[in-house]
Amino acid sequence: MKRLTILFLLVCIINATYAQVTKTKLKDKYVLVVHGGAGTILKSQMTPEKEKAYISGLENALQIGNEILKNGGSAIDAVEAAVIVLENDSLFNAGKGAVFTNEGKNELDAAIMDGKTLSAGSVAGITTVKNPIKAARAVMEKSPHVMMTGLGAEQFAKQQGLEIVAPSYFFTENRWQGLQKAKENEKEKQETDSVTQIKRREIAFSELFFSLSENGKIVGGKYGTVGAVALDRYGNLAAATSTGGMTNKRYGRVGDAPLIGAGTYANNSTVAISCTGWGEYFIRLVMAKSISDMIEFGKMKLEVAATEMVMKRLPAIGGDGGLIAVDKLGNISMPFCTPGMYRAYIKNDGIKVIKIYKE
Amino acid sequence: MKRLTILFLLVCIINATYAQVTKTKLKDKYVLVVHGGAGTILKSQMTPEKEKAYISGLENALQIGNEILKNGGSAIDAVEAAVIVLENDSLFNAGKGAVFTNEGKNELDAAIMDGKTLSAGSVAGITTVKNPIKAARAVMEKSPHVMMTGLGAEQFAKQQGLEIVAPSYFFTENRWQGLQKAKENEKEKQETDSVTQIKRREIAFSELFFSLSENGKIVGGKYGTVGAVALDRYGNLAAATSTGGMTNKRYGRVGDAPLIGAGTYANNSTVAISCTGWGEYFIRLVMAKSISDMIEFGKMKLEVAATEMVMKRLPAIGGDGGLIAVDKLGNISMPFCTPGMYRAYIKNDGIKVIKIYKE
Repeated sequence: MKRLTILFLLVCIINATYAQVTKTKLKDKYVLVVHGGAGTILKSQMTPEKEKAYISGLENALQIGNEILKNGGSAIDAVEAAVIVLENDSLFNAGKGAVFTNEGKNELDAAIMDGKTLSAGSVAGITTVKNPIKAARAVMEKSPHVMMTGLGAEQFAKQQGLEIVAPSYFFTENRWQGLQKAKENEKEKQETDSVTQIKRREIAFSELFFSLSENGKIVGGKYGTVGAVALDRYGNLAAATSTGGMTNKRYGRVGDAPLIGAGTYANNSTVAISCTGWGEYFIRLVMAKSISDMIEFGKMKLEVAATEMVMKRLPAIGGDGGLIAVDKLGNISMPFCTPGMYRAYIKNDGIKVIKIYKE
Repeated sequence: MKRLTILFLLVCIINATYAQVTKTKLKDKYVLVVHGGAGTILKSQMTPEKEKAYISGLENALQIGNEILKNGGSAIDAVEAAVIVLENDSLFNAGKGAVFTNEGKNELDAAIMDGKTLSAGSVAGITTVKNPIKAARAVMEKSPHVMMTGLGAEQFAKQQGLEIVAPSYFFTENRWQGLQKAKENEKEKQETDSVTQIKRREIAFSELFFSLSENGKIVGGKYGTVGAVALDRYGNLAAATSTGGMTNKRYGRVGDAPLIGAGTYANNSTVAISCTGWGEYFIRLVMAKSISDMIEFGKMKLEVAATEMVMKRLPAIGGDGGLIAVDKLGNISMPFCTPGMYRAYIKNDGIKVIKIYKE
C-alpha cells in the first residue's frame, strides 16, 4: 500500500513537471497579421459585393494561419499558409490574379524569412510556379541560396516537386484589361507634345500602378502585394510577402517584396515585417530592416519606429505605401500613408479584426 | 576717382564672398576606398608577379577615382570610374574575367548608390553589357526603377546606349578551367557513397567558391567581387559593387552585391559600404544597412559597428567575407574575417595604401 502511495505521488510530480515544461514551451500568446496591398482604396469606389469579397479573402487567410498557430504550429508555417490563400485568391495581385507586364506576362516575386534562424528565401520573375511563396520557402530550406531569379528559379522549383502551371493559369480578364488601358493611357500621354522627355517618363511611370475599376475606368495607385507576419507560441517570428509587381512593368524590374530587409524581414530579437507600396522607395530606405534596427539599436518601440519610417521618411523621398508588423512581444503595427490598405489580424483571443480604409 | 574706389571695393567684396562660398563648398577632405574581393588569399599561394598584378590593378582604380575627387568631382563619379577599372581588369571577378555559371555563362551583377539622394540602381544576371556598373547607374538615373534583371536589364542598357559585347568578351581561360575543375570535384564528391544527401549539397556548395591557382590546382574560398566607396569634397558619400558571382552557380542565384542594403549602401548622414564575401550570409544580415543603422540609431562609431558585424555576427551564423566603408567624417574601415582581402585607399594627402593579407 505504501509503495502504491509513493508511486502515485511520483506520477503526480512527473505530471506536474511535464505540464510546467509544456506550459513554458507553448506560450498562450500568438499573433497573425495579413495584408492584401495598400493604395488608392476608397470607399466611394467600392461596391458592397467587392468589399465583402476582399474581407472574405483576408478572413480565409487569417483562419488557416490561426489554426496552425493555435495548435502549436510554427510562425513560418502560418505565414506561408496565409500567403498561399491570398495567392490563390484572384482578387489580390499575387499568384492567380497577378497583374501583367508590358509584354503581357505574369512575373511573380516572393520572399519568406524565419526570425529564429535568420534563414531566408526569395524568388523573382517566375512565371510557372503556382505558389511563388512555396518556391521562396524551398529556396530557404532546400538550397544554400537566398535568392533565385527567372528560369533558374523555375527549374529549381520544378526539381523540388512544386506544382507547375501553364503561364495562362495566372490570367484574369480584369488584370488583362488593366494592362490594355495602362498602355493606351501611356500612348496618349507620350503623344502629347507639350510634355518633356522627363515628364513623359514620370507619366508613364504613374500609369504603372493603374488598374481597372468596376466601371471600366482606370483608377490609380493600387499597390498589389500580399503578405503575412506571425508570432507563434514558441516566441518565433516569421514574415512572408508575394506579389505580381506592377501593371505594365518592363525590363525585368524587381520591387521590394523579394528583397530581404526591404519588403520582407523577420528577426526573433526584434520584429517581423511585410511591406506593400511603391517598391523602389522601400528598397532605397531598406524599409523593414530599418525598423528592426530602430528597435534593436535605437531602443524604439515598434509603433514609433514604423510610424517614423512609413509616415515620415517614406513620403519625404516621394514614396508611399504601408506595412504590417508584429514584434517579439506581440505588439502589432499597420501604418500606411495611402488612402487605404487591406489588412487584418487575429490574436490568441480569437477575435478577427479586418480593415480596409483609414479609420 | 571716388567711383573707381567704390567699384574696386565692391569687386573685392564680391571676390572675397565668392572665395568664401567656394571654400565652403569644396572641402579639403576626400577619401576613396576600393576592394577586389575577400577570401582564402594567402601569401604562400601567391607569386611575386601575381601579387604585383593585383597591386597594380588596385592602384589603377585608386588613381582614376582620386583624379576625379581631387578635381572636385562627385563621389558617385569616382566610385563608378574605380569599379570600371576593376571590371576591365581580368584579374578580378567582375566584368572581363568573371567566373562561369554551371551552364558555362558569365552572369554579372552590380549596384550603385548615391548617399546624397538615397538614389540607387542595380542589375542582376546580365551577360552582354561590357560594364555592369554603368548599367546599374543608368537604372538609377534614367529609369524610375532601382533593380532590373536578366534580358530586360540588357534591353534597357542597350536602349541607353551602353556598350554591348558578345558574351565571349567575358571569357578567360583561367576562369573556364576553374569551372571545369569545380564540376569535376563536385562529381567526385557526389559519387562518394559515404556522404548523405545533405552533406552532398554542402560539399557541392563549398566548391562554388573554388578557383584555379597558378599551378592548375583548385584553391578554395575566394569571393570575387569588386567595389568602391568614396567621400567627395562636397561631403557626399557613394558606394558601388560589381561581381561575376560564384563559380558554378545555378538557378539564377543572386548574391548580396546587387541588393541595396545587403552588399551595397550609401547614406550621407552615416556611411558608404561595399561588401565582398559569402553573399547569402550578407543578405540575411542585411549587412551594409545594419552598419549604417548602428551608426544612426545606436550612435556607434563606424569601426565598432563594422567590426561587430563582420568579425562577430557574420561568423556567428556561419558566413565569412569582408567590406570597405567610409563614413561622413572620412573615417575608413576595412574589416574581413577571411585570410585576405584585396583592398586599398587614398585620401586627400595623396598617399596610396594597398594591402592584400592580414597585417
